[in-house]
Amino acid sequence: MFDLAIIGGGPAGYVAAERAGAKGLKVLIFDKRALGGVCLNEGCIPTKTLLNSAKVLEYAHEAANYGVEIGSVSADFGKIMKRKDKVVRKLVAGVGAKMKHAKAEVVMAEAVIREKRGEVITISADGKDYQATRLLVCSGSEAAVPPIPGLDPAQIVTNREILQLQTLPKSLVIIGGGVIGTEFADFFNAMGTKVTVIEMLPEILTGIDEEIAAFVRSEFTKRGVDYFLNAKVTKLNGREVVFEKDGKSQSVTGEQVLLSVGRRPNVAGLGLENIGVDFTPRGVKIDSHCRTNVLNVYAAGDITGFSLLAHTASREAEVAVNHILGRKDLMRYDAIPGVVYTHPEIAGVGLTESAAKAKGLDVVVRKLPLAYAGRFIAENENKDGFCKVIAGKKYGEILGVHIVGGACSEMIWGACALIEAQLRIQDVQEIVFPHPTVSEIIKETIFQF
Amino acid sequence: MFDLAIIGGGPAGYVAAERAGAKGLKVLIFDKRALGGVCLNEGCIPTKTLLNSAKVLEYAHEAANYGVEIGSVSADFGKIMKRKDKVVRKLVAGVGAKMKHAKAEVVMAEAVIREKRGEVITISADGKDYQATRLLVCSGSEAAVPPIPGLDPAQIVTNREILQLQTLPKSLVIIGGGVIGTEFADFFNAMGTKVTVIEMLPEILTGIDEEIAAFVRSEFTKRGVDYFLNAKVTKLNGREVVFEKDGKSQSVTGEQVLLSVGRRPNVAGLGLENIGVDFTPRGVKIDSHCRTNVLNVYAAGDITGFSLLAHTASREAEVAVNHILGRKDLMRYDAIPGVVYTHPEIAGVGLTESAAKAKGLDVVVRKLPLAYAGRFIAENENKDGFCKVIAGKKYGEILGVHIVGGACSEMIWGACALIEAQLRIQDVQEIVFPHPTVSEIIKETIFQF
Repeated sequence: MFDLAIIGGGPAGYVAAERAGAKGLKVLIFDKRALGGVCLNEGCIPTKTLLNSAKVLEYAHEAANYGVEIGSVSADFGKIMKRKDKVVRKLVAGVGAKMKHAKAEVVMAEAVIREKRGEVITISADGKDYQATRLLVCSGSEAAVPPIPGLDPAQIVTNREILQLQTLPKSLVIIGGGVIGTEFADFFNAMGTKVTVIEMLPEILTGIDEEIAAFVRSEFTKRGVDYFLNAKVTKLNGREVVFEKDGKSQSVTGEQVLLSVGRRPNVAGLGLENIGVDFTPRGVKIDSHCRTNVLNVYAAGDITGFSLLAHTASREAEVAVNHILGRKDLMRYDAIPGVVYTHPEIAGVGLTESAAKAKGLDVVVRKLPLAYAGRFIAENENKDGFCKVIAGKKYGEILGVHIVGGACSEMIWGACALIEAQLRIQDVQEIVFPHPTVSEIIKETIFQF
Repeated sequence: MFDLAIIGGGPAGYVAAERAGAKGLKVLIFDKRALGGVCLNEGCIPTKTLLNSAKVLEYAHEAANYGVEIGSVSADFGKIMKRKDKVVRKLVAGVGAKMKHAKAEVVMAEAVIREKRGEVITISADGKDYQATRLLVCSGSEAAVPPIPGLDPAQIVTNREILQLQTLPKSLVIIGGGVIGTEFADFFNAMGTKVTVIEMLPEILTGIDEEIAAFVRSEFTKRGVDYFLNAKVTKLNGREVVFEKDGKSQSVTGEQVLLSVGRRPNVAGLGLENIGVDFTPRGVKIDSHCRTNVLNVYAAGDITGFSLLAHTASREAEVAVNHILGRKDLMRYDAIPGVVYTHPEIAGVGLTESAAKAKGLDVVVRKLPLAYAGRFIAENENKDGFCKVIAGKKYGEILGVHIVGGACSEMIWGACALIEAQLRIQDVQEIVFPHPTVSEIIKETIFQF
């Protein structure tokens, strides 16, 4: 009998196993594919590894601006992809080691929930039955494939297949300019592929500060990425993508076509209905302790269908484990950061300006260019970026911090801390930021209030 | 009549002028050399600009590890030094623009305090008298030149002169392995200079976590930097540095010799004695509002002789201005970050392990390698680093965070916020860190408690 069974070994599942194991719970974890989930195997980690090679390439191309002379520069797509596989293997092995350290039993098979009798939940996998008193369901999500006329799954790729390409495509058409589409656009553009992005909405990167999204799109356009906004894909003929824009039908053909129009939660085939868990095709419903409607059954991560971020998944898993352990905790969604690992990087947390206004909140917004920070000037030729802070008008509480440029991905956690600690403008003005860093831009922006 | 006169246009002075000007005070600022002070003209900014070129060079040398093939790589010392001058000029102009924006009157001349009658303080500069009701003294510090037998100032360089070198020295002997010595060791080693560091104490980088200091020294040693620890310089013969180590006398000769054994506050020649300000050669005494013993006379930055960091100076200046404005504030020194911009970078804030123990505090220390963070693996081949967190044993309050490796310089401000907000281990465990980032190492280390 296990204290906790976990279905899905991604950032929700393996973190739950780690935290629960550290507290002495007897943990069982199922995964039908590979430990680490989408994040580690076909999401965050492989893409960041590729984007790091793009960064190294960018450094090389721009080295002369910093007094470093470089003879010739070329990217070896095969080597870059191989290194990506090596990094993924290493980290998957690392998750395995963490599971061992947590004394969690790992079952590499598809799990189906069979029944719940009293406190005992039965799950079967690979022809064997397992029993546990609590269950965490975190089976993740997969790329949504909408019913576009003519779409042949064998002709297109999603985030999964594109990571397995053996040769660099000369051209790539990306359907959907969200985070996934934009990161791949950056990488393949850096590699020399002709990239075209088709986005249904008026701007790419929905959910990100609109000014930042427009800034990045403009940077990418300068580098040769073609964008079609307000463009609705109506048909696919093999790898010819037909779309309607401004009432006219156009088309663009790619050697590869990436479909990145969203993700759907993996709710089917789990046996959720066998124990009466409340769910729809859009996800499993949870409360602020990450409990489902069924006692002792929790859910976390993409399967809940709304946040779809690895770190949300991990935190939800921690909240669930804390509830099991009787430790006071609550899932909060107001300080969840979002990072896009493009060049320039994007990082933000909390409300965007437009989200605050849509909520009818009385806010003040301040913005400064990154060039206001001495270190940004010292380290960046011909580059730009900015920082935007949103605070409540009456109390000055920090509601959102959004940055584009510099190493903002590594800075933003501090802004998460500010919001979590409910600090106000005046409190942040008293924090000593190290000089010279680009992170000082946050302090300077806050001094504009 | 000015509301505030400021002597010294460095990170204390120009920030005071900005903050006071923004609040409507009529500000006068004197500088005898160049706006921006040591930090901008011969400290932080030029060195970080040089170290950025070293980073670009390092990226180029290691590009093949990330699938990027590079023909030949060479550093152009002349171009790197010229770019450094350009960056400094740009930022000095930026400070000038900030002074205009603050409507501050700038006097580029040496200032001498003449007298204080009632509330009115008279300062003369360039043959003219100026009057103000408050005074902030922030004239900074300069490189200490100790009375070493045979030391000929014309034969050695300090941080000032080394930044003006026209040609790359084949060899460089650095007396003093503190932050300044270590950053120059990194830069010149990267450029191909043979670097030798002579340090009086058992370890370099006094004040930094000892394990981190030893780690960086070991990295530098692998790259060919020679270290002599516990070595006391006894004599100089031109550019031959004679030192005693283990009871034996040795010597090493450099094409250049850098003296970086500390700094002394610029207290002389200011006329402090004319208005009765309490000071010693070691600095001007201030209270927690940055007031001197004389009413309406404040001091901030290196002239106080103890913290010697640009961001301490700026914050002290802000505290002084807040006192003038009647805004509740207090100078605190428990969350002042320290960053060393070497490769690998070092960043820390709060108590080190040894400082906590020296204070007799009951603390718990946890440490994790950076390789525990997936992004570190994705972005670093053959590299290492770690994170150390110190917390109070009884309440779990965060007392110190110390990191070596990754972009820790841009992460550390968040740890300053944690300490300022007096968060405990459990609070930090509830903060959502973006995945995958190297900053997650802070959260993971905190989960080791």
